[in-house]
Amino acid sequence: MDKLIDKIKEKNNPTVVGLDPKLSYIPDFIKQTSLAKFQNTFEAAADAIFSFNRNIIDAIYDIVPAIKPQSAYYEVYGHFGAWAMQKTIAYAKSKGMYVITDGKRNDIGTTIKAYSTAYLGESELFDGKKCAAFSSDALTVNGYLGTDGIKPLVEDCVNFDRSIFVLVKTSNPSSGELQDKTLSSGETIYEAMGSMCEKWGEDNIGKYGYSRVGAVVGATYPEQLKELRQKLSHTFFLVPGFGAQGATAQNVAGAFKDGLGAIINSSRGIMCAWQKNDVNPKDFAKASRCEAMRMRDDIIKVIL
Amino acid sequence: MDKLIDKIKEKNNPTVVGLDPKLSYIPDFIKQTSLAKFQNTFEAAADAIFSFNRNIIDAIYDIVPAIKPQSAYYEVYGHFGAWAMQKTIAYAKSKGMYVITDGKRNDIGTTIKAYSTAYLGESELFDGKKCAAFSSDALTVNGYLGTDGIKPLVEDCVNFDRSIFVLVKTSNPSSGELQDKTLSSGETIYEAMGSMCEKWGEDNIGKYGYSRVGAVVGATYPEQLKELRQKLSHTFFLVPGFGAQGATAQNVAGAFKDGLGAIINSSRGIMCAWQKNDVNPKDFAKASRCEAMRMRDDIIKVIL
Repeated sequence: MDKLIDKIKEKNNPTVVGLDPKLSYIPDFIKQTSLAKFQNTFEAAADAIFSFNRNIIDAIYDIVPAIKPQSAYYEVYGHFGAWAMQKTIAYAKSKGMYVITDGKRNDIGTTIKAYSTAYLGESELFDGKKCAAFSSDALTVNGYLGTDGIKPLVEDCVNFDRSIFVLVKTSNPSSGELQDKTLSSGETIYEAMGSMCEKWGEDNIGKYGYSRVGAVVGATYPEQLKELRQKLSHTFFLVPGFGAQGATAQNVAGAFKDGLGAIINSSRGIMCAWQKNDVNPKDFAKASRCEAMRMRDDIIKVIL
Repeated sequence: MDKLIDKIKEKNNPTVVGLDPKLSYIPDFIKQTSLAKFQNTFEAAADAIFSFNRNIIDAIYDIVPAIKPQSAYYEVYGHFGAWAMQKTIAYAKSKGMYVITDGKRNDIGTTIKAYSTAYLGESELFDGKKCAAFSSDALTVNGYLGTDGIKPLVEDCVNFDRSIFVLVKTSNPSSGELQDKTLSSGETIYEAMGSMCEKWGEDNIGKYGYSRVGAVVGATYPEQLKELRQKLSHTFFLVPGFGAQGATAQNVAGAFKDGLGAIINSSRGIMCAWQKNDVNPKDFAKASRCEAMRMRDDIIKVIL
């Protein structure tokens, strides 16, 4: 996690902008340009999405350490959507941003190795030639399959200086149906998953005391967030649920310890800022920048 | 599940061929053609993979009811890989095959809806125009997030005549680390997940008595497979682990009841048949067909 924490400290900003684009979030002037180039096709949708993302990245890269593209919103547009995600990842990295691809991938040994190659490593073409596909700094993953669904990822984290974030306690209303169930040991499933994260990361603790295996813990459950922060001392948190999902700066305060320990995500709040505040659509990216600054200042205040 | 079970009965074959292609599984003459067209690029890899898949589909579509492309192996090649998966899905459907996309997707409300649109529904372009992206008959999903990570999928299953398969007990060695833990209620986590599948499917039971919400249960745990078959009377099983992962026809017998109730997957066993049996590489697809027939006959024998 050192690379991420360095960027957070450099920008004095523990937030990440989620890029979960929908066509309805994109100003008409961008969509019209893409439609004129590619007619009403998947290619036009993907082109509009990448233009939108690129403008937002240009407006925030000097003040925000990281972006988090959510793969579902790209896969909606088939392989053209995958192109838009690949371009977005590469563009953000070229601007010095840290990229967390939110794919919540999971599978068994040989298959999770393929996901790991796709998102954290390097793909092998013919005659040993290697190229990066959706090469990101970090990937979100689901730990339901246990250690052999995680280990190949951790290996690539070490080899390529990457990290993963494992779902522990998610931000949605029904997350407790399974995650809050109590085990015969007395701990909940989310606590058991949290302990597994500590274990998966224990051999790779960085200079700030956090390992390469982080956890996703929702801002919408502030009590559990605080409790997990106390228990999982080497696990850095990716915290969704701020803003559009209802959580406030006060709700996320418990995710931090000595001013570090978490990065807070906002997606719609930043992407759609221009639609809320009666902004000239041409200034949509400026509106995102203002909202990103407001969010940063809100959160910095509660963790000092 | 009616559509899948109709195809299984029509072919008298409760098996699915997993298309998890790696370049090392593909005969040189195919790779050379792709290299000549696209040089040593992601596009060449994707072209070779689609050629390989198309030949296998041509060789099996009259005897095998379904294919299961595993998305990780396509994502390795970036957006070109996504193109190969999209083409493979569409080609198999054009040949009348049932397509289960193995993506193990999972997320919260609005985001799982986007995955659902991408894999089971129809994507919206501009001015209300709709198009299918990776449109499949079924998708594998991970239920760790609870009901609101599943409900949008079930709605699309009803609207578009689709199904989902939720991970219950996976085939990998460490699946038990979390899934076998006992809850304070006395049941295991995989049993709790199985019960949730029954509940998620209860409003949509088809003519054979199975709902649109199936379960993934590994062949490598035959005792649990048998026990779950007895408990989850409306849940159809997708069973990985046969062949290369070590499970035999006897191991999967318990997945069936009255000759129905499950579809058994083999991936490497079928794709790589030509490499095992000293076959002329030009006849790779014939070797896959022979192996698919052998697997069918093996399994049919134990469920009669």
